[in-house]
Amino acid sequence: MSLAHVRIADIAQHDGQTVTLAGWLYNLRKSGKICFPILRDGSGIIQCVAVKANLPEETFEALKNLTQESSVKITGKVRAEQRATGGFELDVESCEILQRVPEETPYPITPKDHGIDFLMDHRHLWLRSRRQFAIGKVRHEVIKATRDYFDENGFTLVDCPIFTPAACEGTTTLFEVDYFEDEKVYLTQSGQLYNEANAMAFGKVYCFGPTFRAEKSKTRRHLTEFWMVEPEMAYATLEDVKELAEGLVCFIVQRVLANRRTELAILERDVSKLEAITGPFPRISYDEAVKILQRKGSEIEWGSDFGGTDETLLAEEFDRPVLVEKYPAQVKAFYFQPDSERPELALGVDMLAPEGYGEIIGGGQRIHDYDLLLKRIEEHHLPKEAFDWYLDLRRFGSVPHAGFGMGIERCVAWMCGLEHIRETIAYPRMLYRTRP
Amino acid sequence: MSLAHVRIADIAQHDGQTVTLAGWLYNLRKSGKICFPILRDGSGIIQCVAVKANLPEETFEALKNLTQESSVKITGKVRAEQRATGGFELDVESCEILQRVPEETPYPITPKDHGIDFLMDHRHLWLRSRRQFAIGKVRHEVIKATRDYFDENGFTLVDCPIFTPAACEGTTTLFEVDYFEDEKVYLTQSGQLYNEANAMAFGKVYCFGPTFRAEKSKTRRHLTEFWMVEPEMAYATLEDVKELAEGLVCFIVQRVLANRRTELAILERDVSKLEAITGPFPRISYDEAVKILQRKGSEIEWGSDFGGTDETLLAEEFDRPVLVEKYPAQVKAFYFQPDSERPELALGVDMLAPEGYGEIIGGGQRIHDYDLLLKRIEEHHLPKEAFDWYLDLRRFGSVPHAGFGMGIERCVAWMCGLEHIRETIAYPRMLYRTRP
Repeated sequence: MSLAHVRIADIAQHDGQTVTLAGWLYNLRKSGKICFPILRDGSGIIQCVAVKANLPEETFEALKNLTQESSVKITGKVRAEQRATGGFELDVESCEILQRVPEETPYPITPKDHGIDFLMDHRHLWLRSRRQFAIGKVRHEVIKATRDYFDENGFTLVDCPIFTPAACEGTTTLFEVDYFEDEKVYLTQSGQLYNEANAMAFGKVYCFGPTFRAEKSKTRRHLTEFWMVEPEMAYATLEDVKELAEGLVCFIVQRVLANRRTELAILERDVSKLEAITGPFPRISYDEAVKILQRKGSEIEWGSDFGGTDETLLAEEFDRPVLVEKYPAQVKAFYFQPDSERPELALGVDMLAPEGYGEIIGGGQRIHDYDLLLKRIEEHHLPKEAFDWYLDLRRFGSVPHAGFGMGIERCVAWMCGLEHIRETIAYPRMLYRTRP
Repeated sequence: MSLAHVRIADIAQHDGQTVTLAGWLYNLRKSGKICFPILRDGSGIIQCVAVKANLPEETFEALKNLTQESSVKITGKVRAEQRATGGFELDVESCEILQRVPEETPYPITPKDHGIDFLMDHRHLWLRSRRQFAIGKVRHEVIKATRDYFDENGFTLVDCPIFTPAACEGTTTLFEVDYFEDEKVYLTQSGQLYNEANAMAFGKVYCFGPTFRAEKSKTRRHLTEFWMVEPEMAYATLEDVKELAEGLVCFIVQRVLANRRTELAILERDVSKLEAITGPFPRISYDEAVKILQRKGSEIEWGSDFGGTDETLLAEEFDRPVLVEKYPAQVKAFYFQPDSERPELALGVDMLAPEGYGEIIGGGQRIHDYDLLLKRIEEHHLPKEAFDWYLDLRRFGSVPHAGFGMGIERCVAWMCGLEHIRETIAYPRMLYRTRP
């Protein structure tokens, strides 16, 4: 399917030809008898060259006085130009202005610095800026790489429901929805329990959709609505999860490096940091992690979960992601399989990204024994009826199984080298941000 | 990444070798001194052959008495067998039963007929059945094809928010969510308005996620939670939308035919009906559609929208999808661009699938003129403040743009030849169905 105009991304195929580009004025440089409209069209950016002597006066004047983000079609000849970004320029022959942004009501986002609230209020426009554009492209790449990785490795995509009936692990961080006639449902926090059922049907599955946490946290790592990919495998153990997680992250990094160099450059990302991400990743136990942290001055005691600062301290020790495994059962959810040698440990694993990006993956092996799972449900004071279907998976052909979840936004933030997760999604939802 | 056992789907690579398969007992045939456990592992199904004379007595007895859906690893020699489904059988050498389903509490879904409510109550297990498995695989294929189509055609994936602030077109079919401290948000019904902003940043975009409609309908075509893909293109018109929609549907059909013949056979799908789906699709105007319907005895009057029955009547006329375009503006949403020659018509287009599957795609060209859009917002008594950001897209570099939405479940139902949409998603959510 092809539109009538040429995309800037395809400009190299048209060297020497006269083409029409359709886009928006990104920037404009001028000097007397020549002006340089810089056009963006969503596929790329190109500098056009308008020479007064070669153009009807009204065309030159129109271009010279064009305002930022006005929509314009420019026809001209493609010319290779080594010094230009992208390697080409366009010698303007004519132009058609679709909508000129008036001087009185100019495009609100100018090259000067704006505050984050102002930019977020104008998120629908801010996405047009070069930096946000680059982040969006990297996000696309991360998601595509993630899906390709699972598709190419025999996983079946089985989408899990967003509306979930029971409150799995307490309702405090769940968003409640009024369903019909007095019914309440909750927005999913994870597809895992459903994934476990799906893995018994399809062997290896993944779900990939939005998840929701009603956390009142205002950290740079939290959104109330975020996307998560969750694979789950039947006949699999903690070891398989570690291998799968490492493979996924390496695959994503390679794809981003292969296809998004331009965007990483725009973001001024230190790519050497990403190039260092190759397997095998270091693997340490929770026990070892606690010792490292204590040695580094943390006040953490064995038995506590890591906070964001602990994660950062730990990750600092390594130049690539580190896998931390076998946590005290008390800090993990009810469904974790206990370690056979030390049953006080849960067969869980987290992957901490380097450069302070913290946990990007969390997972582990699930309990497959009916009696043990029932005991845990009771110990956690969870309503047994709500988990009856989940217990069914241990009644009918139970097998060891394992999986994990990876937050897409945290992964994108890491790839892009962003300080705050809010720029990794087009319309971030946070405690005080639900618009536009 | 590889698990320790061989997947049935890969069995052809192991002809003549001794391998271990890990799965569940799907069915069992036996006759005295030989028994045939049929094993499924989520990648495929294979018949195993256990000969009493060749096995330790306890192994043979264990297999002979194995219960449906017990989990079992079977080791044996792979043997090509033309008559077998999949072309191979496994001559059993040993087995390890992980969990035997007890006779007293057997697997609830037996080969006999069960009512739909019973099956839906056991959806977490029902997915293991051959038919549901096949549907799941086709769904995976449809989704992968859809994403590949857009990715390969220069579209950028930009996920739109699930939490939306304003009630766009009345709140009656919106699900309301309690956000923090007295704030209300709504679950998205469509990413379109956001897509329009994204198209101005990325040129060609798509979003693909769950959408929600609080409709109290109990038809075989409705879910309260369903997945929708929505492309949007800047510098595009109704014509471009028709071309894109046709291209997408042909691409999906070809992929399903190329990769999912086995599953279509399980579903007893008449593939000749799908093989007939090639472009160009017939294109008719709303005017013509009304005439056809009236000729066929419908009581529809010019100016009304089509009902499900009308759609079926219309689609019956064609052996492939039909594009119906240029509807009366009054039956379409406020944002449709009017036809320049007959402004009472909206530049909208719907694609109706053949065989009674009804509308699978709806889209069109959006208003790009600021004044006209504002007028429409006022005429529809919509709150202008809520649309201020949307109006911004017409203030700052407005261009003609167009897009559509395709419901994934309807498309899957059509591919699979299903009567009801409820089987096209793992955990359907309907008026009276929110569990498991």
